[in-house]
Amino acid sequence: MAAGRVLVVGGTHGNERNAPWLLEAWQRRPTLLRRSGLALELVLGNPAAHAAGVRYLDRDLNRSFVPEQLDAADPGDREQQRARDLLIRHGPRGDAPCLVVLDLHSTTAAMGNSLVVYGRRPADLALAAALQQRLGLPIYLHEHDPEQTGYLVESWPCGLVVEVGPVPQGVINATICRQSQLALEAALAVLAEARAGELGQPADLVVHRHLGSLDLPRHGDGSPAAVVHPERQHRDWRPIAAGDPLFLTAEGTTIAFHPTADQGPQPVWAVFINEAAYGEKGIALSFTRRESWPVRPQWGQALVDLARDLEEESL
Amino acid sequence: MAAGRVLVVGGTHGNERNAPWLLEAWQRRPTLLRRSGLALELVLGNPAAHAAGVRYLDRDLNRSFVPEQLDAADPGDREQQRARDLLIRHGPRGDAPCLVVLDLHSTTAAMGNSLVVYGRRPADLALAAALQQRLGLPIYLHEHDPEQTGYLVESWPCGLVVEVGPVPQGVINATICRQSQLALEAALAVLAEARAGELGQPADLVVHRHLGSLDLPRHGDGSPAAVVHPERQHRDWRPIAAGDPLFLTAEGTTIAFHPTADQGPQPVWAVFINEAAYGEKGIALSFTRRESWPVRPQWGQALVDLARDLEEESL
Repeated sequence: MAAGRVLVVGGTHGNERNAPWLLEAWQRRPTLLRRSGLALELVLGNPAAHAAGVRYLDRDLNRSFVPEQLDAADPGDREQQRARDLLIRHGPRGDAPCLVVLDLHSTTAAMGNSLVVYGRRPADLALAAALQQRLGLPIYLHEHDPEQTGYLVESWPCGLVVEVGPVPQGVINATICRQSQLALEAALAVLAEARAGELGQPADLVVHRHLGSLDLPRHGDGSPAAVVHPERQHRDWRPIAAGDPLFLTAEGTTIAFHPTADQGPQPVWAVFINEAAYGEKGIALSFTRRESWPVRPQWGQALVDLARDLEEESL
Repeated sequence: MAAGRVLVVGGTHGNERNAPWLLEAWQRRPTLLRRSGLALELVLGNPAAHAAGVRYLDRDLNRSFVPEQLDAADPGDREQQRARDLLIRHGPRGDAPCLVVLDLHSTTAAMGNSLVVYGRRPADLALAAALQQRLGLPIYLHEHDPEQTGYLVESWPCGLVVEVGPVPQGVINATICRQSQLALEAALAVLAEARAGELGQPADLVVHRHLGSLDLPRHGDGSPAAVVHPERQHRDWRPIAAGDPLFLTAEGTTIAFHPTADQGPQPVWAVFINEAAYGEKGIALSFTRRESWPVRPQWGQALVDLARDLEEESL
């Protein structure tokens, strides 16, 4: 592969303000970010939505990287155009090509400092495993959800989402910024190691594998008939067993969790509990299964092969 | 004064979802709300902004009750029209007249369950004092701020804001709902006592009297040069002394609090720290002084005089 840089994106959603604030600080004073010697492209994901202070204008930019849409003749709406522009500029064959993308997000859910991996690309898994070894970050492995596709990172050969919360939309919080920066700097250090052929990998990778999502119970008119139960609120990354409280109606009735046949009798782990932006997607929380996978040598090899072509920072 | 009801407003800001969810539940099933025998009007403050999921469409509805605007011949923008419509319908001389308004808000700041009083109207102070006696709620007394005027409650003879947080915009949180309902039910119980001439009042009222607000330090282009310091975040209602950390720059430099000459050497108490919606108003936090005032008999008399004309619920 031709040489390329690391793309660092913030503000893919225009009402998430922490990463854009960091980007601006790093642009003003590049020494504030430990780049580990790698050449970076620092890019505001959705400038128009950021300026308007909303998640998106026409559609979620982080669902707009759908290959058939990107290849279509129709220019599409503003986010579809922005997705195409980002690839023309910073895609692996773009004008300022990037090989790896780190997409910095925040959430109203209490996800802490965490990673989201889309699918099981070997280089992504190697990067996530090394990050987990360094910082202990929990990992949400998102896959096999036909309702939710077209994520930004999938359009680059390797990429992760850093997801930090809880923080309200529109709020810059110093601790959330610090966590985001820590995760990014650790990712850059891992990539620099991989580039040098010195990638460290743990024996096992712990993932929370996506099983599915659940909406709030709703009235016939679509309005919520219940809300997330207080015993679930801010309890991301924790197991839920059959019979545990899930929702609470206005009448004070608790609706308990009942696993589906697919989920089986083992506990499920909840993530993105009561994320503000997911209401419109019909997601009150998502279920995962916590699994420990042996780290395979070919994952690290894929990342090393890719990282070899990463450009160094010009000093 | 002619007879009237109690106006209960939620969703004056369209992205605050907790009170509107409660309103809908109470409209579906009136017995869910303990009305203390009083006739209520339950009203969604800004239905158009609520439908759009934004704080407001053209301007903050809770700054749109400016007497000279309300009396102007020009119909004004959408929020100015809505303010006028609310008064035509539910003002003290409206079609379905209301004498008291309880305006239910939420905030991204860690205000807990609290009250906001605008100015020093005797009936407001009596209602706030009785609520503080029952529930121990802290009270933010807002006054003398020429930058911030036109609050909804000021257009009724008596009215308070119930302000509950922290909760992100767009999120319904069961605990926030519970707190809002508790405050409202207590307010209705106080009004029913006042109507019966049996108003209880404490010896003293503790208020946090507004002194002024402070913006983030900003670069020349208006972007924030620092954020709220982690030692201030979520520390509403706590004192700040000279030299305490206030802001943190991207470089990691702490900016300390230095009281103004007006504020004097005593500590100030901070409220509405890092409220998402106040960024555009240039408010990172507001300063208050904590004061204990003897409760005056004429406050209670003013509330009793008003409450006498409150209508009973028809059963």
